[in-house]
Amino acid sequence: MKEKVRVAVNGYGVIGKRVADAVRLQDDMELAGVCDVVSDWRIKVALQRGYPVYAFDSPAQEKMEQAGIEVRGTLAGILKACDVVVDCTPKKVAAQNIDKYKAAGLKFIVQGGEKHETTGHSFSAENNYDTALGRESTRVVSCNTTSIIRTLTALKKAGLLQKARGTLLRRATDPWESHLNGIMNTLVPEPEIPSHQGPDAQSVDPDLDVITAAVKVPETLSHLHYWNVQLTKEASKEEVLQAFSNSTRIAMINYANGLSANNTVKELMLGLDRPYGDMYEVALWQDMLKVVGNELFYAYLVDNQAIVIPETIDAIRALTRLEENAQASIQKTNAVLGVRQGALI
Amino acid sequence: MKEKVRVAVNGYGVIGKRVADAVRLQDDMELAGVCDVVSDWRIKVALQRGYPVYAFDSPAQEKMEQAGIEVRGTLAGILKACDVVVDCTPKKVAAQNIDKYKAAGLKFIVQGGEKHETTGHSFSAENNYDTALGRESTRVVSCNTTSIIRTLTALKKAGLLQKARGTLLRRATDPWESHLNGIMNTLVPEPEIPSHQGPDAQSVDPDLDVITAAVKVPETLSHLHYWNVQLTKEASKEEVLQAFSNSTRIAMINYANGLSANNTVKELMLGLDRPYGDMYEVALWQDMLKVVGNELFYAYLVDNQAIVIPETIDAIRALTRLEENAQASIQKTNAVLGVRQGALI
Amino acid sequence: MKEKVRVAVNGYGVIGKRVADAVRLQDDMELAGVCDVVSDWRIKVALQRGYPVYAFDSPAQEKMEQAGIEVRGTLAGILKACDVVVDCTPKKVAAQNIDKYKAAGLKFIVQGGEKHETTGHSFSAENNYDTALGRESTRVVSCNTTSIIRTLTALKKAGLLQKARGTLLRRATDPWESHLNGIMNTLVPEPEIPSHQGPDAQSVDPDLDVITAAVKVPETLSHLHYWNVQLTKEASKEEVLQAFSNSTRIAMINYANGLSANNTVKELMLGLDRPYGDMYEVALWQDMLKVVGNELFYAYLVDNQAIVIPETIDAIRALTRLEENAQASIQKTNAVLGVRQGALI
Amino acid sequence: MKEKVRVAVNGYGVIGKRVADAVRLQDDMELAGVCDVVSDWRIKVALQRGYPVYAFDSPAQEKMEQAGIEVRGTLAGILKACDVVVDCTPKKVAAQNIDKYKAAGLKFIVQGGEKHETTGHSFSAENNYDTALGRESTRVVSCNTTSIIRTLTALKKAGLLQKARGTLLRRATDPWESHLNGIMNTLVPEPEIPSHQGPDAQSVDPDLDVITAAVKVPETLSHLHYWNVQLTKEASKEEVLQAFSNSTRIAMINYANGLSANNTVKELMLGLDRPYGDMYEVALWQDMLKVVGNELFYAYLVDNQAIVIPETIDAIRALTRLEENAQASIQKTNAVLGVRQGALI
Repeated sequence: MKEKVRVAVNGYGVIGKRVADAVRLQDDMELAGVCDVVSDWRIKVALQRGYPVYAFDSPAQEKMEQAGIEVRGTLAGILKACDVVVDCTPKKVAAQNIDKYKAAGLKFIVQGGEKHETTGHSFSAENNYDTALGRESTRVVSCNTTSIIRTLTALKKAGLLQKARGTLLRRATDPWESHLNGIMNTLVPEPEIPSHQGPDAQSVDPDLDVITAAVKVPETLSHLHYWNVQLTKEASKEEVLQAFSNSTRIAMINYANGLSANNTVKELMLGLDRPYGDMYEVALWQDMLKVVGNELFYAYLVDNQAIVIPETIDAIRALTRLEENAQASIQKTNAVLGVRQGALI
Repeated sequence: MKEKVRVAVNGYGVIGKRVADAVRLQDDMELAGVCDVVSDWRIKVALQRGYPVYAFDSPAQEKMEQAGIEVRGTLAGILKACDVVVDCTPKKVAAQNIDKYKAAGLKFIVQGGEKHETTGHSFSAENNYDTALGRESTRVVSCNTTSIIRTLTALKKAGLLQKARGTLLRRATDPWESHLNGIMNTLVPEPEIPSHQGPDAQSVDPDLDVITAAVKVPETLSHLHYWNVQLTKEASKEEVLQAFSNSTRIAMINYANGLSANNTVKELMLGLDRPYGDMYEVALWQDMLKVVGNELFYAYLVDNQAIVIPETIDAIRALTRLEENAQASIQKTNAVLGVRQGALI
Repeated sequence: MKEKVRVAVNGYGVIGKRVADAVRLQDDMELAGVCDVVSDWRIKVALQRGYPVYAFDSPAQEKMEQAGIEVRGTLAGILKACDVVVDCTPKKVAAQNIDKYKAAGLKFIVQGGEKHETTGHSFSAENNYDTALGRESTRVVSCNTTSIIRTLTALKKAGLLQKARGTLLRRATDPWESHLNGIMNTLVPEPEIPSHQGPDAQSVDPDLDVITAAVKVPETLSHLHYWNVQLTKEASKEEVLQAFSNSTRIAMINYANGLSANNTVKELMLGLDRPYGDMYEVALWQDMLKVVGNELFYAYLVDNQAIVIPETIDAIRALTRLEENAQASIQKTNAVLGVRQGALI
Repeated sequence: MKEKVRVAVNGYGVIGKRVADAVRLQDDMELAGVCDVVSDWRIKVALQRGYPVYAFDSPAQEKMEQAGIEVRGTLAGILKACDVVVDCTPKKVAAQNIDKYKAAGLKFIVQGGEKHETTGHSFSAENNYDTALGRESTRVVSCNTTSIIRTLTALKKAGLLQKARGTLLRRATDPWESHLNGIMNTLVPEPEIPSHQGPDAQSVDPDLDVITAAVKVPETLSHLHYWNVQLTKEASKEEVLQAFSNSTRIAMINYANGLSANNTVKELMLGLDRPYGDMYEVALWQDMLKVVGNELFYAYLVDNQAIVIPETIDAIRALTRLEENAQASIQKTNAVLGVRQGALI
């Protein structure tokens, strides 16, 4: 068996801490450590989980040590101890780090906040795993884009997709920082239509005819996407549901089952023992989905904190060639993370 | 000059109190009084405004009198003192009242929560004022439907409208009762697509090809509608804006002017001295509006508490034949209420 | 070793599902099953966890079976299979059930929403475990009261408590049902001062001089209590912190550690792998705590969904005499649930 | 009769725009104009109201003119055209402006965000109008402090006040900017007890024994203060209410009248035709107020956007000696603004 790939996570935030946890669970990967700048409760959680902690630079190391946090070294140190870096730093930071990864001869992954041009490749496992095999780097597309690619690719594979028009309700901020920046009793539309998620989906599949509009809504749980898809023909609801089952990462929920709002779905995922109540799946309302002639209408939820995690695990395997076969990696990741097929419950 | 039409308002709630205020401002109408069941601060505001207060029935009258509220009589009493009743009671109540209005030989208006069949006519001034002339009754369509009719009718008149697909973000509850029933940190989609606003718009104009999906969002200020309209041809943005100017009750707002969220628009309306910060206009984002080929994308705000008020005033004139000419009534109402054309500011 | 006590949970809601999970973890208890009326996703989670599911009555059983849920029987059935019932039903329901528990000769526990008189005993482990030994029943006091008893008892044991005055900010609704009933953009004070938490605390310790005022706030995470305590003398901050350490279920948090708001604490608990991010401890801000002369000021968080869970486990042991010694039960429960002493992190 | 005092408002924000409107209503004042840096909808409202608009500096003037706003000049220009400046700029800006006001030989008023030392005098009309007579400048204390001074001064004047302990629930952000910075689904306590409102109240009355704790809550309407006051004796509720009536700017509300939450009070004020639904009064819950022995418990609402407006008008009169007599100014301001005595409704 291949040697375990050693993965470093740079940026122990919303995405980074989940990537670290997910890497820990894979039997073909090893967490080299996590790296960050903070010295408060957030990085202490990493210590409690037994993760080697590195500081981004010396000033950060000093602050961490003053806060009683055991630090293994700085970024340079962790880069020596890994094979691949998953960069989960805030948008403007990642660009600066990339040179260091390259200089260290490492494979690296950036998240969806970075531009496609950073790596020249945008990753969505079920769509283009193969094109990532052995590359130096890739960009795992954002939560919104990941959900768009999964769903539209599923329809496309079934020959049903002509064009897609989406209205994306985006959660305003993540729960951990809702005391720092939120919106209250208002809605904040994005100033431009199309919003960037459409073009971003095209970075994975340039053939998609997709236009989105987006608006920030005052909740912290998940995004909610509404779609109006022009089908290639008058299909039945069953055909459409069958098409969506092409993806192993789209699960169905039903209003009739009491799952009538995103807070109920979050509570469900917590009840299913998902860490943080994380949902890796796109959760699509099955009873609500409607076909009218050759038009398809549906809505689904996106857990913006978690949906990219299985994608990131697969990206690690593709870049490092831990797994040559897309389906093999996807199924392995799904099994380890407990991704659900069919009905979410 | 014609005698003033005496208007009774049954139900002094969110809509009713605004109708009463608007009637008071018209020089061809007289407020016969307002009728309600409550005996708390809400009805005391009517007294402070000098409105004659009636109680729905004797038990309600007793409670009001115990609370020190001067009551002129019960519903029967106000029905004797008016020519037309505007019923603004909660959904299940209105149906029962209608028989009393008919028995009293009165013209009457119900609001959008009632079914079209209640009156056999659904009213939207700029669209079908003429068909309401002299009728016994009409139903002023709901806030959502009013905005849909105004905008789609404007596009239709300009020969641009083929079909319209909307995603409606609905405010969860009104400010006055946000302590009683609200939603918190979640989104609540309506279980069915199409939602009822599409068919409801067809009650005014059966030819509209319109399908909507709707979702409750956790704010109290206004609805936000996103639309994707299939145009009859590849039109320019200017043509579309010109079409919207066909309606005297669609005003433009600009993100670039700082009006980037519905709280800023509410604050603006308060600053323009609108009672309650009410907005009678559909407020459409001009800079955001986009034409891509023969597809049109735009978004606008609907003040659900106020948008039907000018419509209701016009409906009074149509039923009572106070004004035979639609445009004359519309312009009069607009002038008295201060409805703004072109840019909101 | 004693035989495992078989515990039935009647009411698989916010508290009930947590009691079931906690019972499952104890090596001296066995979960006989859970009983409820719902037939949607909520009870399906119980099935997924392998819990025997019972229906409250035949109509409920029918609905559950129609929904594909395997039902072992009705309430009567589960009462035959257990030694003690933990009743976690909504307020008005529990009173009716109690007669059935008595008729079945079972020990039973009700939650804090029920009146003290229902059982004649109100339970808070660190305060009065001994007085519950072998009783037929007890009432575990509410989340608010549990936190009040823990903190004031700790001060009292150190001889510091003279009187306590609290302002309680209560979360408006629980996350699972925040789509059904919430408050939005407002604050809802309780109409009466004192609010009932003071008298409720006196049901455990009649000697407490405590008066509270309470207000509902628009968030779903936790309660926040502010206290002004008149000390018996001018104590130092260290003495006060030492006193609080008398309780094994009060943990310290620090603003300086980034734990500056209750969303950060919830995120921390999720990161510490607590199911649902549950916090069994009172989390008291250590750096914020202040002594001015002989007055003490402090604030703490109460996880209303979880704080009573360790108490309930200890109550089971006391009633059934599974453990004669209070400290032994408390320490066992703490160890199994992972309750933290000293700093939360 | 004295010549009208010419008032300039520097900073046309939440407070500034209200000061401008209030000055406009006084028959002994004239609005010289308003000055700001913004060039969006906010300053356009000033134009619509017919206010002379000045730009803070040349860059601001340029932007305004590009936006089509007629500008009379810069700050220097408005300082030439007024007798007194009311500075309502953000905290760090005011300090810089003060030198300009002094250099121009003007009287000036700063708001509560500035330190007491800026002017050496902190103003609360009913408490210390006389000490402001003819001064060069004063600081109108903040919304929280204004309410504290009004209420505690009233109790003090009745000989009832020994010491006061408050828990202040502060609205997180103002409605106009709730899309820019808010908090969501959380509570954010201030890190230190005492919070600064206590010492701030002592800047007006050094003899007050008052300690406060404060917490930000996720709503935008108003602050809610809970107080526990140690009385000098066992007084009756009637004595306490009588004491509060010493202030002309404390009004009573009743839960029993349906005013059970701050959203209902805001809706009431809108219904009473207050601009923006502004409330100049402290609104104290009369039925909730409770005396227990010699302890007093009560709660009230503070409209943070409006409560300082009558104070600012009185401060203008005091500095300029427009009115030598405190009561005369207070009564005039109350009458013009429609301040309510006794019950709010």
